[in-house]
This record gives sequence, C-alpha cells and structure tokens, in this order.
Amino acid sequence: MAQATQATIGNSEFDRDTAVVPRPGEPGVYDAELSAGWTIIHAVNGGYLLAVLGRALGDALPHADPFSVSAHYLTASVPGPAVIRTQTVRSGRTVSTGQASLLQYEEDGTEVERIRVLATYGDLDALTDEVRTTALPPAIPPYEQCLGAADGPAPAAIPGSSAITDRLNIKLDPATVGWAVGAPSGRGEMRGWFGLADGRDADALSLLLTVDALPPTSFELGLKGWTPTVELTTHVRCRPAPGPLRVAITTRNLAGGFLEEDAEVWDSTDRLVAQSRQLARAPR
Amino acid sequence: MAQATQATIGNSEFDRDTAVVPRPGEPGVYDAELSAGWTIIHAVNGGYLLAVLGRALGDALPHADPFSVSAHYLTASVPGPAVIRTQTVRSGRTVSTGQASLLQYEEDGTEVERIRVLATYGDLDALTDEVRTTALPPAIPPYEQCLGAADGPAPAAIPGSSAITDRLNIKLDPATVGWAVGAPSGRGEMRGWFGLADGRDADALSLLLTVDALPPTSFELGLKGWTPTVELTTHVRCRPAPGPLRVAITTRNLAGGFLEEDAEVWDSTDRLVAQSRQLARAPR
Repeated sequence: MAQATQATIGNSEFDRDTAVVPRPGEPGVYDAELSAGWTIIHAVNGGYLLAVLGRALGDALPHADPFSVSAHYLTASVPGPAVIRTQTVRSGRTVSTGQASLLQYEEDGTEVERIRVLATYGDLDALTDEVRTTALPPAIPPYEQCLGAADGPAPAAIPGSSAITDRLNIKLDPATVGWAVGAPSGRGEMRGWFGLADGRDADALSLLLTVDALPPTSFELGLKGWTPTVELTTHVRCRPAPGPLRVAITTRNLAGGFLEEDAEVWDSTDRLVAQSRQLARAPR
Repeated sequence: MAQATQATIGNSEFDRDTAVVPRPGEPGVYDAELSAGWTIIHAVNGGYLLAVLGRALGDALPHADPFSVSAHYLTASVPGPAVIRTQTVRSGRTVSTGQASLLQYEEDGTEVERIRVLATYGDLDALTDEVRTTALPPAIPPYEQCLGAADGPAPAAIPGSSAITDRLNIKLDPATVGWAVGAPSGRGEMRGWFGLADGRDADALSLLLTVDALPPTSFELGLKGWTPTVELTTHVRCRPAPGPLRVAITTRNLAGGFLEEDAEVWDSTDRLVAQSRQLARAPR
C-alpha cells in the first residue's frame, strides 16, 4: 500500500533495511540485519538479499554501480543477522570484479552460506549516451487501470501473508492477474508498474530488488507454490530516472522441472534500465 | 571445414583440448593446456575457456552436468598452460554449486586470473520429461543454403586468421552475413547451424562452447572489431540429441557502450537445449 511520506534515496526503508556495517579490522566483511519486512510467507525475498549483497560490493569495490551481478542461491535466508564476506577479484580502470557471500548462523553458531555472488561493477555515469535499442517498453495499461494488493480479490505479491507486499507499490497489468482469481492465462508473462511504497525513487541498487519482486510467471502458467531461484543474473544498463518503473517478465521455456524468467525494467523516460534472467525450479 | 573422420564424445579434438588433469595432492586443482586451435586472431575463445572450466567443475562436483554457469571474464587468455582452482560451495541432493578460477602465469611466474565462474550442476538425466515451451526454433534456411567459411567472400567466424574456424562447422543464415560483404543488416541478429568440424556430437559441455561461437551480433549492427565479453551465463536445459544444432543470437539493447547477446541453442529434435545471455562491450 502506498504511503503518504515521500522517502528519498539514502533515507528510506529500503536503504535502512539493506544497510551493511563494515567490521572493524576485517576488510571486506560486513554485518547486516535481514529485515522481516521483505519476506514472502517466511522466506526472505531474493531480490532484497541481492540488494544487501550489492550494497556491500559497492562499498568494497573501487566502482560503485552494479553492471552485472550473477547470484547462485544456496539455502533459504531467514530474517535476522547475516554477514557478507566480499573479495575483490580484479580492479580495472573502467570496471572491477568482486565476489560476495552472504552467510547466516545456525543455533550452534555454524555459518551457513545463503547466496554467493560474482559481480562486475563500474560507473554508470561514465557510459556513453549512445542508445541503439530495438527493445520496446512493455505494453502495460496506465497505472490507474492496473491492480495492486489493495484493489481486488488477491493480486498480492504472493498469496498468503507477505510482509513485502506492504513495502512495494506493485500494480499488475490486469492481463496477467488471472492467477489471483483462479483463471491463469496460460502464458508465461507477468507485467506491472513497480515502486517502493514509501516513494523512494529507484537507483542502480534497488533495481536488484525490482527484477525479482513481481509474482512468478509460473502463477500465470497455472502452477501454484514456491518457485525457488537457482541462479539470477542482472545487468544494470542505465541509472534509472525518477518516477515509476515498468517491469515485464517472460518465461518461454518450462521444461524438465525448471523455467527461466527474463525480466526487463524500464524507467519513466522509456530507457531499458535493467535486464535479468533467472533459472528457477518449477513448483511441483 | 568439415572433416571426413567422425569423432565421438570423449574421443575428439574438443575433448582432448578441454582435458583437465587433477593435480596430485591438491584436491580440486587441475592443470590444462589451452590450445592455440581455439583462438580468434590471438585471443582464446571465451566459450572454449568455459568448456575447460566446466569440465573441471564436472569432475570436482558431485553432479556432472552444468545447469547454470555464470562466468565473469577478467583478462584475455592466451594459448599455453593454465591452472583451474575449483571449490565446492554446496553439495545438495539434486544440485550442487561450485566455483572455479582459471589462471595463467606471467613470465615471472605471477599467477593472473583470467575467468571466474560460479556454477550450479545437476543431472540432466534426472529431469522430468515435461516440456511446456512457447519458444520456437529459429527460422534458419536448410543447412545446404547456409554459408560457411569455405563458401564465400568471408563468412568466417571472425575476419582475419582464426584457428577456431577450422574446428567449427558453422553455416550462417544468409540473412545474417551481410557484414561479411560490407552490408550489415542493421539488426542485432546472428543465426546458423553449428557443429564441431570433426563430427563429434554435442553434449552438455560442448554447449558451453556453442553459445559463444558465432560471430558477434555487433557485426550485423555495423560495428567492427572486438566485442569482449564481460559476463556470460549459460543455462543447459536438456541433454542435446545427436545431429547438428541451430543457434540464434539476438541483441535488443546496445546502449552506453555495452550490449547484451541472448543465445538459444536447439537440437535436431527441436528441443531448446541451452539459453545464454552475455554482457559485452561494444566495439569502439
């Protein structure tokens, strides 16, 4: 549900909940507190986790902006303390490459790795202005005609109690919400408007959340249940302009119990600001 | 150029040139010899390198087949000795995750990292038979109507002397070879038939080569020169059937000096066997 208060980049719920604290005397190591506010049922959202890792890497590497972030998901994260261990793999003039692992602790103190990430960072402001894209923004009806969590039978991010729903302002294209009323389209498509509920504008870091925030395309394919991500790679192609984003996700190949989800994120100036692809397990 | 001898999986040039030798007493460490036979001008092909890394990971991990392989390219590889250091990140029941680095040596003996890879491996034979794909095989003219290195003005893999051309049997769709005669289509598309020149059939490992073997789409966009890969992620979705493969590569967004290349690989039974996406630097 959209809130009245306008938050800003650097001063928002997203920024506070993805904060990382460098450990004194341990270069490249950061402590974080995974917020229960970004959970779907009991699991912490994969895009939120990616943003936490991305923030640590942006601090650890000589370049601040994620260009390409490849994440392999190992075990399900839970709200609570986490540690991020980063490594600078290569520092270049225009791009740098780093690695990061997010770990949590078992009750007996054992570290369990949740996600491992390889990422290439650069400076989005240093890119040329040239744009020769043949990609077109997704055909999504105007914001007012799209459906959010408060608008209908159940077009929440995921059925059931999901804290993340309160933090996102997602309005889905009515053509892709059939699943919420028991009439999935049968097409592997999910589209909608995306914003943070407190009004914070998008930046390169929040795009890592955006690519994995809509309901899974598997819902529109008539499959119910969890669609766990195996691997998710995101390319940030441009610093997003202020204003709402449009997200379109497509699945073309559901086979052998796995599916890919290709996401595109467009900003308010019709720039394609992020592309992602994930490999996920189909619900059984 | 196709050769008369029919090689087999396990006994072929590709298998010999991607061989890795476990170092005695150093678990997870492998020696390899990068062959000059897979170079484009002077650079070792990125797909070939990925296959070398993929073979080491297939040996090191409890699962043999690459499901998702994310590679970040750090420095250009050269023919000669290389070492691959692998790490098992997580061993699961159905999938395992590993990491691998390929390193070479400077003249003074310093190790230089060339590529780092995160990968999730599994067992392709254990996947369900379910296929619900809306993706269609690319519309490529029959093999006989497509153009190979020996067929015309210059539809080699890359202009100039490229050893890899002799090891691949690539026949490009005439609609995507305009670049070779100075008349690029302006569309970010490259399509063709793919085989290994010695007749070895495809397997999961050789698909890692296939996704990065065609000329870059940037040629058809009218750009000349090197298109270095920053990051390349490949999903192997099915064990390929014997026979020639079809590959279609698409670029939709050339912007800010970078472009993505999405590749699809289809086998002779019309199964989509691999999907990949790379982020590359546009030629300057």
